[in-house]
Amino acid sequence: MSKMMAEFLGTMILVYLGDGVCANCTLTKSKGQNGGWIVITAGWAIAVGLPAYIFGGISGAHLNPALTIGLAAVGKFPAAEVPGYVIAQMLGGVVGAALVWLTYLPHWEQTEDKAAKLGIFCTAPAIRNLKANFLTEVLATATLVFSIMGIGASKAADGFGTLFVAFLIFALGASLGGPTGYAMNPARDLSPRIAHAILPIAGKGDSDWSYSWVPVLGPIVGGLLGALLFVAVF
Amino acid sequence: MSKMMAEFLGTMILVYLGDGVCANCTLTKSKGQNGGWIVITAGWAIAVGLPAYIFGGISGAHLNPALTIGLAAVGKFPAAEVPGYVIAQMLGGVVGAALVWLTYLPHWEQTEDKAAKLGIFCTAPAIRNLKANFLTEVLATATLVFSIMGIGASKAADGFGTLFVAFLIFALGASLGGPTGYAMNPARDLSPRIAHAILPIAGKGDSDWSYSWVPVLGPIVGGLLGALLFVAVF
Amino acid sequence: MSKMMAEFLGTMILVYLGDGVCANCTLTKSKGQNGGWIVITAGWAIAVGLPAYIFGGISGAHLNPALTIGLAAVGKFPAAEVPGYVIAQMLGGVVGAALVWLTYLPHWEQTEDKAAKLGIFCTAPAIRNLKANFLTEVLATATLVFSIMGIGASKAADGFGTLFVAFLIFALGASLGGPTGYAMNPARDLSPRIAHAILPIAGKGDSDWSYSWVPVLGPIVGGLLGALLFVAVF
Amino acid sequence: MSKMMAEFLGTMILVYLGDGVCANCTLTKSKGQNGGWIVITAGWAIAVGLPAYIFGGISGAHLNPALTIGLAAVGKFPAAEVPGYVIAQMLGGVVGAALVWLTYLPHWEQTEDKAAKLGIFCTAPAIRNLKANFLTEVLATATLVFSIMGIGASKAADGFGTLFVAFLIFALGASLGGPTGYAMNPARDLSPRIAHAILPIAGKGDSDWSYSWVPVLGPIVGGLLGALLFVAVF
Repeated sequence: MSKMMAEFLGTMILVYLGDGVCANCTLTKSKGQNGGWIVITAGWAIAVGLPAYIFGGISGAHLNPALTIGLAAVGKFPAAEVPGYVIAQMLGGVVGAALVWLTYLPHWEQTEDKAAKLGIFCTAPAIRNLKANFLTEVLATATLVFSIMGIGASKAADGFGTLFVAFLIFALGASLGGPTGYAMNPARDLSPRIAHAILPIAGKGDSDWSYSWVPVLGPIVGGLLGALLFVAVF
Repeated sequence: MSKMMAEFLGTMILVYLGDGVCANCTLTKSKGQNGGWIVITAGWAIAVGLPAYIFGGISGAHLNPALTIGLAAVGKFPAAEVPGYVIAQMLGGVVGAALVWLTYLPHWEQTEDKAAKLGIFCTAPAIRNLKANFLTEVLATATLVFSIMGIGASKAADGFGTLFVAFLIFALGASLGGPTGYAMNPARDLSPRIAHAILPIAGKGDSDWSYSWVPVLGPIVGGLLGALLFVAVF
Repeated sequence: MSKMMAEFLGTMILVYLGDGVCANCTLTKSKGQNGGWIVITAGWAIAVGLPAYIFGGISGAHLNPALTIGLAAVGKFPAAEVPGYVIAQMLGGVVGAALVWLTYLPHWEQTEDKAAKLGIFCTAPAIRNLKANFLTEVLATATLVFSIMGIGASKAADGFGTLFVAFLIFALGASLGGPTGYAMNPARDLSPRIAHAILPIAGKGDSDWSYSWVPVLGPIVGGLLGALLFVAVF
Repeated sequence: MSKMMAEFLGTMILVYLGDGVCANCTLTKSKGQNGGWIVITAGWAIAVGLPAYIFGGISGAHLNPALTIGLAAVGKFPAAEVPGYVIAQMLGGVVGAALVWLTYLPHWEQTEDKAAKLGIFCTAPAIRNLKANFLTEVLATATLVFSIMGIGASKAADGFGTLFVAFLIFALGASLGGPTGYAMNPARDLSPRIAHAILPIAGKGDSDWSYSWVPVLGPIVGGLLGALLFVAVF
């Protein structure tokens, strides 16, 4: 399997399982409706950890343009491979979101709340304050990228590294996810937002494009910051 | 121990613990009543992961005809062993369901809701739409089988593989379980449904045979799809 | 450290953390009050898994007379060591329960419900039906002992074994704990019951001695059954 | 990286993620509001386990003056390094708390409850009884330090040790955290309390200095007790 195929499939699974847990906890009549923050955060932890485990040995399983760009900026990943990785990740995110739509097909028309339906695909801030929301995404993504590089640098075996990546994703949601829903990844936010705009989702509203740059630029800046901090101290 | 004994005992434990967590969260006066989706999904994760750990070294711990058939279809398991595996799995599912009935013996007559009692044994859709329900089971089981094969192909040690299988089962419930209750396994759905029909459960209703083919055929088709996708890309 | 000291300290920690999570979820004004079944079951999982990890290399970390007796009955543990192990375990359970009382000292007098206070120390059935309650304890403990022996016989490394023991305890509570509160261990039920009877707990009621034999004899019979089943099939 | 930098960064992450989960579950309009005790305890488990994993190989990842002092008192850590470690930990705690304030910036003014806002930074007792609260902190920290030393002494691999440290933190919160909110660490309580006093947090109240000595002296005494008990029995 090519590295790009691994990034495509891995990000597809990431968004399928990640947006899927949001669908399950949100959509009317879904069996997991109102499952709570513990289901959301644990679900996202495996949504990232599982493809990291499966595809890590092939492509490194970045599954996130903010990580790919951050690593490249500090010389830990070849710059020439960045465009291919990012394209594969973004496409994977779109397909993963479409799979969520298909999996929950009869639930969309039974769910009234248009914002809730959009919130399954991409993030929205708890309090709309774009500067503060941007800062939150920068800080959360810096923590993400710094910690992933720190986990990779630790002396433990490979399997534990992937386990602690899953734990990290859990903690980022549990601890830092309150203000913006912890996008931290353009392929997890912009790609499903595009899918939301394209797909014939029953009773959908607009795709909130005015907010869409925050969970793209915030993670990219945060990823650069986290990678720079890592190489500065380690 | 023979491979068939391992599949029988493993599937028995899978259904005993899996249907058990449904009983605990559902039955009147049970201490775990209304424990929520996190208890259901974490309970099922161990219900699969524990026998996978115990019996994996003996039979591979398929514990699921959809996995056995999918692996055989792509030449990863001897076709001649399929019937024995499937029979052992289906019998294990019946015995496991009977153990749930015995463990919760005084609770059945105190629980009024007949559909809830059936829902402990086998799945029912949140919104009854057989085509959509079938599609959900196909997609969830394809993800299950593709991911199990992907976990097996990764470079990590055995123990981590079983751990990530448990994580996978958690994620499938948390993320894709909302519409149909994530059967993904005929031995987890048809076998306990048969047990429900046979056992003298206090105040039981009918066994909803009109839906019973969906969580059998859906998983088998999904298992084939997942296995074919795996061999196509890996 | 002697084996008996390990069994004493390990069972002390087991009951301290296990009864502690019941105290936290039950007592008036405690910060974890109404934390739910997920906190109870995850708390007990670590309450057993942590001392199993610390003391496993010294004494095998039985921490449970039902396991010690079951192993001895099938020749997997020297019969001559049984009395010492059981005494150490039972004493550890009493001291662990006393530590729970001290840790939550100001909360006892603010909690009205006498049965709830007893329920922190030892188990009570959801529906009082001694034959059915006995059967539940037999089945749950047979699953416990069979699975522990199965985990020990699997080909995975030591650390994973302890991890899956913790998972097993979680699953037993999540799946089989509804009817009786999953005692499965005389040192976890009779010892804290004795502590409840002895300690000057503010506003305590009686210690429900009429039920006390069920979570002692049930686990012992279940432990024998599980061990016999294991040696019969493995 | 120097040991002191590792202690500084590790404790910063510990408090950032740990106080972060309190912010998420507490602050008005935060997406994790009322996430419950399971989110708090699991969040704190990773808040400690993640930096333990990243920085363990550099400084031992004490991340807690009570642990550093306890280890030094029994000759398991050089006394000369204690001041540097403690200063780095205390500074890390202040910076981590400031990051929580920044991450949740628009939420502070929308949250009325002054005590709730303080409770995100540092602990407060459920029932104010300083002697009993002190005892609870002593017992919980003694369990913490004894168990960490026990985990370190066990025969399992490094990665598992860190995993069980995370489990231990979960259990201490789930089981012993009810009366005082399980400070167990001056760098997790006094440092964020100082941050609360210094930072311009919207609508903040006083910093409850009358209680502040309990979660400092209690953990130090408990750490000494746990370390002494460990060397006495192991």
